[in-house]
Amino acid sequence: MENENASQRSPRLGSSYYPERWDASRWPADAKLMNGIGFDFIRTGEFAWSKFEPEDGRFAFTWMDDAIQVFADHGIKTIMCTPTASPMPWMYDKHPDMVPVTEEGKPFGPGERRHYCFNNPDFRRYADRMTTRMAEHYAGHPDIFAWQIDNELGGEEFICYCAYCRKAFQAWLLNKYKTVEELNRRWGGTFFSLEFTEWREVPLPIGHNVNFFNPSMKKDYLHFYSDSMKDFLMSQYRILKRHLGDIPVTTNRFTVFWTDKFDLRMDREMDVVAFDNYDLELSLAAFHHDLYRSIQPEAKHWVLEQHTGLRDFGADQRDIIAQTVQSIVRGAELVCYFSWRQINYGVEQDFYGVVEHDGSPGDTYDILKDVVGWVRGDGAFLKDLKTKNDVAILHSYDSSMMYYVNHMFNSTHYHKALYERFYVPLFELGVGVDFIHDFAAMSGYRAVVIPVHLLMSQEGLRQVEAYVEAGGTVYATGDFMHKTEDNWRAYGETIDRINSLTGVRHQKLLFVPKPQEGQAPYLFSYRGQSYSYEGYFNKTARDGDGSADRTRVLAEVEEPAIERGTSAVTESRQGQGKFVMIHTLAEAAFQRRLFADDLPTIGIETRELPKQVECMRMHDSQGEPVGYFVLNQSRESYEFVNERSGERTVVQPGTFEWIRN
Amino acid sequence: MENENASQRSPRLGSSYYPERWDASRWPADAKLMNGIGFDFIRTGEFAWSKFEPEDGRFAFTWMDDAIQVFADHGIKTIMCTPTASPMPWMYDKHPDMVPVTEEGKPFGPGERRHYCFNNPDFRRYADRMTTRMAEHYAGHPDIFAWQIDNELGGEEFICYCAYCRKAFQAWLLNKYKTVEELNRRWGGTFFSLEFTEWREVPLPIGHNVNFFNPSMKKDYLHFYSDSMKDFLMSQYRILKRHLGDIPVTTNRFTVFWTDKFDLRMDREMDVVAFDNYDLELSLAAFHHDLYRSIQPEAKHWVLEQHTGLRDFGADQRDIIAQTVQSIVRGAELVCYFSWRQINYGVEQDFYGVVEHDGSPGDTYDILKDVVGWVRGDGAFLKDLKTKNDVAILHSYDSSMMYYVNHMFNSTHYHKALYERFYVPLFELGVGVDFIHDFAAMSGYRAVVIPVHLLMSQEGLRQVEAYVEAGGTVYATGDFMHKTEDNWRAYGETIDRINSLTGVRHQKLLFVPKPQEGQAPYLFSYRGQSYSYEGYFNKTARDGDGSADRTRVLAEVEEPAIERGTSAVTESRQGQGKFVMIHTLAEAAFQRRLFADDLPTIGIETRELPKQVECMRMHDSQGEPVGYFVLNQSRESYEFVNERSGERTVVQPGTFEWIRN
Amino acid sequence: MENENASQRSPRLGSSYYPERWDASRWPADAKLMNGIGFDFIRTGEFAWSKFEPEDGRFAFTWMDDAIQVFADHGIKTIMCTPTASPMPWMYDKHPDMVPVTEEGKPFGPGERRHYCFNNPDFRRYADRMTTRMAEHYAGHPDIFAWQIDNELGGEEFICYCAYCRKAFQAWLLNKYKTVEELNRRWGGTFFSLEFTEWREVPLPIGHNVNFFNPSMKKDYLHFYSDSMKDFLMSQYRILKRHLGDIPVTTNRFTVFWTDKFDLRMDREMDVVAFDNYDLELSLAAFHHDLYRSIQPEAKHWVLEQHTGLRDFGADQRDIIAQTVQSIVRGAELVCYFSWRQINYGVEQDFYGVVEHDGSPGDTYDILKDVVGWVRGDGAFLKDLKTKNDVAILHSYDSSMMYYVNHMFNSTHYHKALYERFYVPLFELGVGVDFIHDFAAMSGYRAVVIPVHLLMSQEGLRQVEAYVEAGGTVYATGDFMHKTEDNWRAYGETIDRINSLTGVRHQKLLFVPKPQEGQAPYLFSYRGQSYSYEGYFNKTARDGDGSADRTRVLAEVEEPAIERGTSAVTESRQGQGKFVMIHTLAEAAFQRRLFADDLPTIGIETRELPKQVECMRMHDSQGEPVGYFVLNQSRESYEFVNERSGERTVVQPGTFEWIRN
Repeated sequence: MENENASQRSPRLGSSYYPERWDASRWPADAKLMNGIGFDFIRTGEFAWSKFEPEDGRFAFTWMDDAIQVFADHGIKTIMCTPTASPMPWMYDKHPDMVPVTEEGKPFGPGERRHYCFNNPDFRRYADRMTTRMAEHYAGHPDIFAWQIDNELGGEEFICYCAYCRKAFQAWLLNKYKTVEELNRRWGGTFFSLEFTEWREVPLPIGHNVNFFNPSMKKDYLHFYSDSMKDFLMSQYRILKRHLGDIPVTTNRFTVFWTDKFDLRMDREMDVVAFDNYDLELSLAAFHHDLYRSIQPEAKHWVLEQHTGLRDFGADQRDIIAQTVQSIVRGAELVCYFSWRQINYGVEQDFYGVVEHDGSPGDTYDILKDVVGWVRGDGAFLKDLKTKNDVAILHSYDSSMMYYVNHMFNSTHYHKALYERFYVPLFELGVGVDFIHDFAAMSGYRAVVIPVHLLMSQEGLRQVEAYVEAGGTVYATGDFMHKTEDNWRAYGETIDRINSLTGVRHQKLLFVPKPQEGQAPYLFSYRGQSYSYEGYFNKTARDGDGSADRTRVLAEVEEPAIERGTSAVTESRQGQGKFVMIHTLAEAAFQRRLFADDLPTIGIETRELPKQVECMRMHDSQGEPVGYFVLNQSRESYEFVNERSGERTVVQPGTFEWIRN
Repeated sequence: MENENASQRSPRLGSSYYPERWDASRWPADAKLMNGIGFDFIRTGEFAWSKFEPEDGRFAFTWMDDAIQVFADHGIKTIMCTPTASPMPWMYDKHPDMVPVTEEGKPFGPGERRHYCFNNPDFRRYADRMTTRMAEHYAGHPDIFAWQIDNELGGEEFICYCAYCRKAFQAWLLNKYKTVEELNRRWGGTFFSLEFTEWREVPLPIGHNVNFFNPSMKKDYLHFYSDSMKDFLMSQYRILKRHLGDIPVTTNRFTVFWTDKFDLRMDREMDVVAFDNYDLELSLAAFHHDLYRSIQPEAKHWVLEQHTGLRDFGADQRDIIAQTVQSIVRGAELVCYFSWRQINYGVEQDFYGVVEHDGSPGDTYDILKDVVGWVRGDGAFLKDLKTKNDVAILHSYDSSMMYYVNHMFNSTHYHKALYERFYVPLFELGVGVDFIHDFAAMSGYRAVVIPVHLLMSQEGLRQVEAYVEAGGTVYATGDFMHKTEDNWRAYGETIDRINSLTGVRHQKLLFVPKPQEGQAPYLFSYRGQSYSYEGYFNKTARDGDGSADRTRVLAEVEEPAIERGTSAVTESRQGQGKFVMIHTLAEAAFQRRLFADDLPTIGIETRELPKQVECMRMHDSQGEPVGYFVLNQSRESYEFVNERSGERTVVQPGTFEWIRN
Repeated sequence: MENENASQRSPRLGSSYYPERWDASRWPADAKLMNGIGFDFIRTGEFAWSKFEPEDGRFAFTWMDDAIQVFADHGIKTIMCTPTASPMPWMYDKHPDMVPVTEEGKPFGPGERRHYCFNNPDFRRYADRMTTRMAEHYAGHPDIFAWQIDNELGGEEFICYCAYCRKAFQAWLLNKYKTVEELNRRWGGTFFSLEFTEWREVPLPIGHNVNFFNPSMKKDYLHFYSDSMKDFLMSQYRILKRHLGDIPVTTNRFTVFWTDKFDLRMDREMDVVAFDNYDLELSLAAFHHDLYRSIQPEAKHWVLEQHTGLRDFGADQRDIIAQTVQSIVRGAELVCYFSWRQINYGVEQDFYGVVEHDGSPGDTYDILKDVVGWVRGDGAFLKDLKTKNDVAILHSYDSSMMYYVNHMFNSTHYHKALYERFYVPLFELGVGVDFIHDFAAMSGYRAVVIPVHLLMSQEGLRQVEAYVEAGGTVYATGDFMHKTEDNWRAYGETIDRINSLTGVRHQKLLFVPKPQEGQAPYLFSYRGQSYSYEGYFNKTARDGDGSADRTRVLAEVEEPAIERGTSAVTESRQGQGKFVMIHTLAEAAFQRRLFADDLPTIGIETRELPKQVECMRMHDSQGEPVGYFVLNQSRESYEFVNERSGERTVVQPGTFEWIRN
């Protein structure tokens, strides 16, 4: 899968700017400073609802018109944001039930942030009106080149359980299941007599003991609420497109650990995918670039908030250098720094900005100016390069949702497991990956990692079989395809084919609890080294199934003693390829070791990198490898060895190097 | 106290089975497999309310009739359960206030489990109607040999605080105290002006700071709610007995750590006492057998859910062998395994069954078949044996409730202290115990342990005096009889008699807080070894009371330094017996050492056993000791030495041995 | 600043006594025992509302009249308390909304303590009526010499958020800001569109995520609720004074860690300042004496509850000796022990008393009798002595409130930081301090410590400049004056003057997070020793500002490595004085070392004291130093060396010594 950098123009760089927070007399000075740094644009308007609509139905745009003009006069264009993330007090005075309700049954207070429910009709009416008026007013504006809808949708890990949600959930279920009988069947209502006679009986999945709520209902509720978000997002999108035509419209996502209960593939409908990057770990920022890029794999993505390299004492402002370059290398065509200047009131007083607190340019400004200069100058060659990844990770929102609602014995967090145990080991080996969301996309890769993939899919399984048969390598975990989309156990429906894929006979899907305080960890042994594990364990029969000729046991259980010798990791050859199953969820160090040992055997280069050092293999437009981008965000210098040329390059802390092949 | 095994017929063994979860075409295969394993019965019907009453007032029994018949055709009888633990959504649609309310003021959601309040009149009406209709339908059915009421009453550690409870509590108080003035007096309403003028003013003991609620009120609330459960249980019992006549009716309890806020002596009213056993520790399972057996000490008890030996990776299916034999040796005449087959939907998807997930017999099936075969064959001699215990533990539900509500400085948990610090040391020494609930029952034992017994009882104290005088040995803790039944301090009312019993002069009942992080533990010294302690400390005057001739100090305080030399454990001879007071709550290791040193001096045999090994001394029908039952649920083999014969027997892990005297 | 002991008569000593808890026939015996111990008074009446007003509007005082008489007959006078801390159940039956509501939105239950809201009109009406009737009844009573209002106002860390509070908050804001526009401006409502159009829209600052509430609003709410308390307190005060005339009226405060969200300077309006002392650490008791004394610095204060030296096992009753003497030395003219006798019902059953549980005099009684005898006899010379402190700590309730509401990144607790990191080091060096609340009061001291002082004050800054110029020494922390009274960042407004004071150029106010589990602490180095730090760090530019001639760097950052060499502590000479800035919040050990090194250079004597040993330098009426009071509440003897005379004095554990100069 190729990620074309070639056809892009220089990436756009700019900053969030809130004209309503500063006296208008200050705007020209800021515009001039932005111009001086080489910025292209400001991003503005989000959270300014009270300025755009100071009273119910009275709208005011002149102040913003003036600001746009001041910046345009200095060559700075505008990304306009709709302000719907910050409804105002007068709305709650009129509609007290506009506040969302948490899973604990606790209402939000007016005066928070994102304190509305997607299913509240009054909010939707206000939001539609606001967005319509903005779109009407700014349609055809020459200095606005893009729009953002709302801000960090789904932020604060929030799902609403208000009375409007209950009604909307019932309607959503009616649409999905058509009859109450079908709902009862698909939820397994036979268990604990959760059988409905009328739609209106369906409750919200909240109350006293979340462990006793039906897991099919809980999974449906996540899908329902994700659809509620999509419904809001698309309604806003349609309003904007109706008036604005070709101008790109997007919305800004946040860390997936905040929003992983929503199916973010809904952003395929946006004109461009965007997210906010506040990660301090290079690997975590890379993970988010790759994950968000995967939603529209053929397109570039945007970073709509990029932290300015400093928050706490001990952080290094130079981190902004590595993260800017990383963004571009990993496919961003726009980076917007957050924010221009620290605000001295409200809850975000402690967030830093590009300029100093008093508005003067300081060291952050100087560092950014250098980076922007490099990107536009010496670094312009970046646009002739592209990345080409041989490894994919198969991602599954259904599996994420199922792990989220399966509280009873299991505390595995899908994205945390995905990132820490699979993405990081590959990152630390300098192996670039693409995320894919469909089994059909596997064929473009030499190897596909399918971790914590609970969702069973007969078609997916068929594709895995075909992929391996044709020469592909798959790495999967013990929970592989163990749940239907209704969140039922699928064991019986897949076991024969999984046995065939793995070349061993599975017996029981058991559970490995996390060791308690003072208890020894559960371990398996791989090449003389012990590794811990937890979560589900897909236990094989000790006698295998007679296919030992094509199956190798790579690791065996050491602890608990009673299971000593049970297969923990197996490799099974199928046709031209192989299927490696880690029968449980192993610690990250194991995957690092396994990939380091195994990937080279299928022609994938690896390299041992220290923490906070990134190495990207780059290719020219013909797809030939031409060099390495090495970023060093660690606090020590790093010596890169080009094994082809034998050349050694020292990369200083807080810098990066381009090393030709 | 003798526990007669002699007169029983072979224990009954069977399995929970839920016909509504499987297609009817599958039932014959399951019945045949059950017959093959040697099972006698299925237990069924609980949680199937929605199948029995799919709509308000429309009842359906044919499906169950058919299932009973299929199993009867294979020689499998039925225990029928009322389904009242799972009220249905339509009930909450009609009566939204049917949900219980937690101590936090949070309502349950419809769709949980046990989500009803005993005091809700609508629920009671529905439950009475359902149970009546079932009883009418199944009266005289030849294949139903027993009934279970509801399921795990009081489960999930739950006490309700709904508006109906408040009214019912006021009525309960009126019945108990007759006048508001008496209520004020007994609760000590003078303190903090908690004095009522009308019954309707009495609040629920919930709100902001539980430490400020009157402790007499809190204790009464526990008794009230326990009585509410009993009222529900007995109403159901009476309905069943009215229609069913002689067929035994019971209800299944759960771990006492879930239900210790209820006075389970209410089960004396059942035809048989039953509980569900999910304990993985042999000693904990033994504890529950002994505790539940004590409710009807002259009768056998039932295990209505017995886990199938496996839940987590690292558990051993062979554990089911030890636990089955243990059940029978400790007095169970029926064991019902849970469950027949793992369900693939609903919240209990991860619980295993007798057969494999796909319905085929696997290793669990084979193991069970062996056990059942042994019990019915070579093990039939069990019925000629009985146990005869020389030691009793005096149990007190009042003390449990008082420790539960005394939050201010003390976090002692009655049953946890009872089990961990007193029962386990005796178990590990191979000393069998009976629980007794009345002081009058002491006379049947050589020694009586009275731990964490807060409740003061003048009559009980008199009986202790008489028992010791007549030659008995008592082991008590420092909190002995320090609270009246109204949860007042009783110090002044008992101190002289406690001084006399202990042979020292007590000065103050102080409190030993748990050491904080990094703080050294409080220690006392016994025979050169240090032991930690906490909780109440009944401090003696240093000069004693001049009775030193009959009093020995067994242990003295080491830490805190300022109390060095204070008596920590004393032994006082009274008449023919002695009274040993541990003046505080010591760690378990101390009690193990004390019992090992002391019990042999009064003719009670002890033996040092490793963890997860159990040794029961068995007697013939004349009460003569004839041998030992040794169960090994540990992961290593255990060598038992019969000190009489010198014979050595190796007991393999996961097995048991019968060793003749 | 002198604290005159000279003019006082012997301190008054007495005990809390609750006649309603004991039979009237017992009162004479208690009165006699009190007389025997040398007590002057009882404190009574609080919590007895149900005895004073058993039914709505029916009042009863005879029982109390009788009790007062019995004690008067034995020479024991009375402090009468209003009982308003314990409203009764019938009030909640009539007005269910009288219960306060917590920040979590949870209502209190009737039957707690202090379960009323200052803004509830029904409660206020009942309280006014009760207090009026008491005052009318007892006006002119010859045996009542003082009154206490309510009990531990603001106890249990409680702030109410009920519907009445919302209305009252809106009215308070109207009074403060006059227009909604001004409110919007001062709260920075531009941020997140928190702009109001009508007063009624203003919400309570509660809801889902406290981090998203406007910090200016949160600070105003604390001031508002503090004013609500003051309004109640003053209304009660005026009722009492109207009827009682000259008799002193007070209220009893508690540990500042419970009440630090209230501006306790409101007690300047009381006739005397009083507090309850339950501290076991001598330094913490001293801290409270000094802090409460500072509210009326020219007057003596009272201790209305003094614990009786024993609560847990391992505490020493002799602690009461040191704490009694400490109280008097630190300026108390009345000490009331809590309580006379342990009560056997209600929630405080585990609190001990002066006499034993059965009412007989025991060792606590004997110890107290000795102390009282000494105070009245050999210790009478105390009244000729006074303390004279050279060091002040500048205290700021605004800063305390701002630290309380600034949750986002910072978990610093103002009073905890003040006590642990500044007060304790001075205490351990034997350096007496006064707390001052106004910058104008600095001039009386050689050195002023201004720690965790967030509040910016232009006038205060001017005074600091003048104080240093004139020869004073200031020790401040890195957060010095960084927030306006509206809780905005003030950096820009003060930075030039702070640069001038510190003699370095500040660059950014950064944040040092607490190290996470397993992470190395952040350290700076001072005279070869490393010290940890956290919280805000006021980072200086590395090149300084050219004023190096008058600036010395005392400590430099070691960790994090990237900041190595940054100034951590600087000393700047200004005119005759100096300004020492600790640029962050350092661990206590650093301040102890800094003060030990630095204070002697400005003529302040220090001395190294072990934990739980106190040393107070005493002066005669001419202000000449005449000796030391040394209290030893540790468990080991302490040898005091008088360096002037070379004399050595051993102070035994649990005792004190007076050492003449």
